[in-house]
Amino acid sequence: MIRILSSIFILNLASAFCSGQDTDPLKYVNPFIGTDRMGHTYPGASVPFGMVQLSPDTDTLPYEVNGSYNRDVYKYCAGYQYADSTIVGFSHTHFSGTGHSDLGDILLMPTTGALQFNPGTSDAPEKGYRSLFSHTQEKASPGYYSVLLKDHDILAELTATTRTGVHRYTFNKGGEAHIILDMAHGIYNDADKNVWTFIRVENDTLITGYRQTSGWARTRTLYFAIAFSGPFTSYGFRDDSPARVYRGFWRRFDQKTNFPEAAGRNIRGHFDFPATPGEQITVRVALSPVSTAGAVANMISEAPRSDFDASRKQAEEMWRSELGKVSVTMMNEGQMTSFYTSLYHTFLSPTIYMDSDGSYRGLDQNIHKAEDFTNYTTFSLWDTYRALHPLFTILQQRSTSDMVNSMLAHYDQSVHKMLPVWSHHANENWCMIGYHAVPVIADAIVKNVAGFDYTRATEACITTARNGWYDGLNDYMEFGYVPDERTGSSVSVTLEYAYDDWCIAQIAGTEELRREFTDRSRNYLNLWDPATGFMRPRKADGSFRQEFDVLSTHGQGFIEGNAWNYSLYVPHDPDALIKLHGGNKRFTQHLDSLFTMYLPDSFFAETEDITREGIIGNYVHGNEPSHHVPYLYNYAGAPRKTHYCVRHIMDSKYLPAPDGLSGNDDCGQMSAWYIFSALGFYPVAPGSDRYDLGSPLVKEATLSLENGKTFTVSAVNQGPLNLYVKKAELNGTRLDRLYITHAEIMQGGRLVFYMGR
Amino acid sequence: MIRILSSIFILNLASAFCSGQDTDPLKYVNPFIGTDRMGHTYPGASVPFGMVQLSPDTDTLPYEVNGSYNRDVYKYCAGYQYADSTIVGFSHTHFSGTGHSDLGDILLMPTTGALQFNPGTSDAPEKGYRSLFSHTQEKASPGYYSVLLKDHDILAELTATTRTGVHRYTFNKGGEAHIILDMAHGIYNDADKNVWTFIRVENDTLITGYRQTSGWARTRTLYFAIAFSGPFTSYGFRDDSPARVYRGFWRRFDQKTNFPEAAGRNIRGHFDFPATPGEQITVRVALSPVSTAGAVANMISEAPRSDFDASRKQAEEMWRSELGKVSVTMMNEGQMTSFYTSLYHTFLSPTIYMDSDGSYRGLDQNIHKAEDFTNYTTFSLWDTYRALHPLFTILQQRSTSDMVNSMLAHYDQSVHKMLPVWSHHANENWCMIGYHAVPVIADAIVKNVAGFDYTRATEACITTARNGWYDGLNDYMEFGYVPDERTGSSVSVTLEYAYDDWCIAQIAGTEELRREFTDRSRNYLNLWDPATGFMRPRKADGSFRQEFDVLSTHGQGFIEGNAWNYSLYVPHDPDALIKLHGGNKRFTQHLDSLFTMYLPDSFFAETEDITREGIIGNYVHGNEPSHHVPYLYNYAGAPRKTHYCVRHIMDSKYLPAPDGLSGNDDCGQMSAWYIFSALGFYPVAPGSDRYDLGSPLVKEATLSLENGKTFTVSAVNQGPLNLYVKKAELNGTRLDRLYITHAEIMQGGRLVFYMGR
Repeated sequence: MIRILSSIFILNLASAFCSGQDTDPLKYVNPFIGTDRMGHTYPGASVPFGMVQLSPDTDTLPYEVNGSYNRDVYKYCAGYQYADSTIVGFSHTHFSGTGHSDLGDILLMPTTGALQFNPGTSDAPEKGYRSLFSHTQEKASPGYYSVLLKDHDILAELTATTRTGVHRYTFNKGGEAHIILDMAHGIYNDADKNVWTFIRVENDTLITGYRQTSGWARTRTLYFAIAFSGPFTSYGFRDDSPARVYRGFWRRFDQKTNFPEAAGRNIRGHFDFPATPGEQITVRVALSPVSTAGAVANMISEAPRSDFDASRKQAEEMWRSELGKVSVTMMNEGQMTSFYTSLYHTFLSPTIYMDSDGSYRGLDQNIHKAEDFTNYTTFSLWDTYRALHPLFTILQQRSTSDMVNSMLAHYDQSVHKMLPVWSHHANENWCMIGYHAVPVIADAIVKNVAGFDYTRATEACITTARNGWYDGLNDYMEFGYVPDERTGSSVSVTLEYAYDDWCIAQIAGTEELRREFTDRSRNYLNLWDPATGFMRPRKADGSFRQEFDVLSTHGQGFIEGNAWNYSLYVPHDPDALIKLHGGNKRFTQHLDSLFTMYLPDSFFAETEDITREGIIGNYVHGNEPSHHVPYLYNYAGAPRKTHYCVRHIMDSKYLPAPDGLSGNDDCGQMSAWYIFSALGFYPVAPGSDRYDLGSPLVKEATLSLENGKTFTVSAVNQGPLNLYVKKAELNGTRLDRLYITHAEIMQGGRLVFYMGR
Repeated sequence: MIRILSSIFILNLASAFCSGQDTDPLKYVNPFIGTDRMGHTYPGASVPFGMVQLSPDTDTLPYEVNGSYNRDVYKYCAGYQYADSTIVGFSHTHFSGTGHSDLGDILLMPTTGALQFNPGTSDAPEKGYRSLFSHTQEKASPGYYSVLLKDHDILAELTATTRTGVHRYTFNKGGEAHIILDMAHGIYNDADKNVWTFIRVENDTLITGYRQTSGWARTRTLYFAIAFSGPFTSYGFRDDSPARVYRGFWRRFDQKTNFPEAAGRNIRGHFDFPATPGEQITVRVALSPVSTAGAVANMISEAPRSDFDASRKQAEEMWRSELGKVSVTMMNEGQMTSFYTSLYHTFLSPTIYMDSDGSYRGLDQNIHKAEDFTNYTTFSLWDTYRALHPLFTILQQRSTSDMVNSMLAHYDQSVHKMLPVWSHHANENWCMIGYHAVPVIADAIVKNVAGFDYTRATEACITTARNGWYDGLNDYMEFGYVPDERTGSSVSVTLEYAYDDWCIAQIAGTEELRREFTDRSRNYLNLWDPATGFMRPRKADGSFRQEFDVLSTHGQGFIEGNAWNYSLYVPHDPDALIKLHGGNKRFTQHLDSLFTMYLPDSFFAETEDITREGIIGNYVHGNEPSHHVPYLYNYAGAPRKTHYCVRHIMDSKYLPAPDGLSGNDDCGQMSAWYIFSALGFYPVAPGSDRYDLGSPLVKEATLSLENGKTFTVSAVNQGPLNLYVKKAELNGTRLDRLYITHAEIMQGGRLVFYMGR
């Protein structure tokens, strides 16, 4: 604990924060946070939950090299690494903070001088169309990004509407200008990832087409329409397909120059303009999951004119409206930046996935029409059910019902009758474990979020949880746990199933169902090994696995969390967990050990994606399974240790700098943890109506709720060292409990924390 | 001429024809005609203009071998060769009579015994799922096909609705039965032709999916739904993709057995049934150009139940209705068979290409709704504008307006603003030359076919003809011909442009346009070489090419016809052509030489696709450019030579046997030539309202027109040797001309030929 305390001093006493904070939340968003190393965020432009994420790609790497997974590819999940010095171009789709990836569709890059058709390499950017850039000539704010492309002396600016990316290129020196359209480009790309690409030059300012890929999403197609503010004077295409493509009677035509149709696996195009010095070209790129006609209609409805400034203003207003839902004052500007950047990151995904007319591509690859809801995709549910979706039940209730309806549509279209596990762009990618659409739905039902059919949603949860073929579920239902022989992550899977099942029990309509799923929710007990005090892999014959390393993750029955971290994953019944550990004192000591134990260097050498910066003792904040753990002290009668830990995590793992995130932001989960914790409460078990109290980081925060009410949190005597909550009052009444309820928030009111040392 | 006469004796005197002809036209259709060698027809089941052509494939070959065109693939344009002894399976799409190919989608094959996942080879069928078969256990009639699959002792029967293929498999010996679904299979296939395939097992009787290919159609997707009459008990898939496909988190599942989703480049599936001896399984396979939802809806609307006999009866009624439009008596049963089989072949394509709700995929790959028309595809226009579409202006007026509206939709969706050249399945494949949608449209306008917008159609023709980038058109418009340097078929291209332009002149709305296109229609004059008496390649500098072989085709400025044949291609101005040749006598002698000259063996060795059987002298009936030539004798005052030639062609090039067609049927063009000629008249220049009189082969024929009127042709004193028309009467009045007009047919009436020797 000594080590932790010292670091708090260093971090928080370094900068004193003066009053007079600006009221515009946009000023405090720094989209570069998380772009260095592990955060996997992107700095580019999008609007809240936008279908377009228009952002620079500094590099992309193949997913495999010589048939093996390319470990370096991981760096480029969001296409951008802050340490890089070149930009390949600007592509229109990016995940925010994921640890596996896809997308990077429809790359545009403006160039000058001789036409170059290949992207070049970061070592020798001059050999390709990419360009050197410098962070000193780069800006990013919500809905806006700009950079000077040094090799071409072009100022590139980006903004976006929900479905349209808008580029403005200023050709400082003029001359022969090209805009490269690289359909071969993509994130987590392989030579064979592109299944097909298709381009039509509709006229001298409009291009349409699509990119079809098979990657993380197995069968994905994204349609686009590109409108230039002025006519190009010539254009051309090259197809560098690795595989032979039938050419046939097309050979009769010169398809390389000014031929308006191109199709093949890996097409690159160029559009040429004679530019006068200082000339600006605005390019609008609308996307659609449905068709090129849909993309054109989306553009007409959202960005009908080539007016970059208008689109930017609109994007900023959308951000101002969403970020303004929380008005906050904090102790210093860095915290303000961390807070609003976190809030910004929480509102990036899930992403809207439908045309402006409500049409969208379903999981069955058919076109559906969203009736009375907005269809969303990018459900990183193993991550986001924990804090992101609970945050939405407070700040984004309408979107929450849209998201649930989107998950139910997915369920209806699923040939398995499964709710999404990790889904994006009309695909289930099956990433990670569990069926965590269930806690999102249960949480929304328990919290009375309106706008979806509770009965239908509950049925979908139950049907999902009974899919015996899925990842050991048959065995789980038979044995009460997933046997070690079945999967390498049998313990993690069992614990998460148990929690998900508890969620179903909270919403089940009959006593019989409640009993069935309450019984299932106790399955974590079947893996508790009293001899070691950890959850432990168990074989089908009932015996525990003998070889068992509580520090390792891989091959130990866990995933993204070792036995120390994952064994605490009983969010729905901490009291029982504490009993297993022998009571409050023993449990508190166990948590203390977790947060303080010294790990040998070999641990970091063997464990992927974990660095000393990302952990506290053996507690790994960069992965999700123990996000609730700091709040478990509350249950053991040691709330001060909760206060201490959460403040320490906020202070050390969320820094207002490009390398400020200690792990993948995971579609906003890491950021949502911060928002909750900074507000002073956290949803330990989504599916219950409780938020556990921690130690707020805000001085004051006001949540403007969609029901018109406001809920204010204030921290009296807040200060860097006053991290302990002496008492808390709700609406003037002292709280004799360590939680507040969802209803208490939604009815509006005032939560006051009295802080001290 | 001696040689020709002797062959007529042999053919026609061999069989005497007795009276008592059956009135059911279906009895006279032999779908095997053309399936041996060059006809490239298929024997399987379809309905008139049906979207489904469900037919056995005896083999398919790769389009390329070691990077070079595989000459053997040509045999399998329709998937079936009569000489073969094995059947691979039954696929759902086939061209009828083409000389290049594609399709062969969604192959099903029932098997018994051990599961075999590869098709095997014709040499060793036992090593794959294919089966030996015998023509003695094979039957085909309109809308019906059956064969005994010897290796599996399964009787396979096929029938079809417009959008649904229906299979009935009788498992004679029972046992472990499998139905193979081979998505890797296709016609003109390469390892890389499949772009993507996608399969979902919706439940234990319903499968959906699609096959996406890049071949002759560059970007083609066909969706399907398969319904089994009873549940399968197990199933599985294998993906033999040549390219690596990302597997990712799907690896967690056993996707080979009973896993209901499969996607990849080359998937094969099996569906297993325990069959009792004699058990029948009916399989309905609906297609859609739009979506799997569209395929399901098509099935529900057309074949809502697994009732093979009902579907067959419906198909046969559709054929009876269409074939019954011509009631004919001929001299012998063989001629009856040739006639009705030809009529059957003319009604196979173009093919309907839209869902039952009017939705279809357009050339722009977007989904469109056909308003007030039926959308067609499979436009082999270089072939079919000559006789097939003119035949439709008489027998299929409603379909003609649908086809024109389909071509106009193609034009609207074309990024080039081009009418179709050779189009199929939402693709322009650019096969062959000219812009022969123009004569189809002009012919329909000139003949007052109702149901489309003449002004819009004329504009589309004009815009198409001014696409300077297209195949030498800029040069053509500048020089008055396509220079030899521009393309290897400069003469053919110029001659066909000139004819197409004449068609535009017939429908142009202003004097200026009529003059422009009439001038263009005379461009054939620019290639006339008076020194040789042939059309001859000409260079941009105005000089004729020096090396010039009038017998060769390739490299001589021609395509599918040498100088002898193609130089007569001035269908719109035979009189002027005759003058160029020096008048009637010289022209008649020239035609006589064409029909009688002896070609050295080297000609056949060098010339692709032409055999001695396919020609008469140097006249090639198996290719289209000289189809009008026998009727040119009329213009030179030698109608008896027209009579002689057309009767000889009918007698020798259309035999009622599998090898009875002397060349590709070319989507019905060859058959339409026969129908017209057998009726005694032929459209030398579609776009005019005239039909030139020849020598009828019918004894009597009655055309039942869609306007409720009938037009009857009778041949008094008809006989095998009475092939000369002594006089002709129309409605009792002797004709003093060698043609009748379209209006004379459409107003109903009686055309009587008086025949003699």
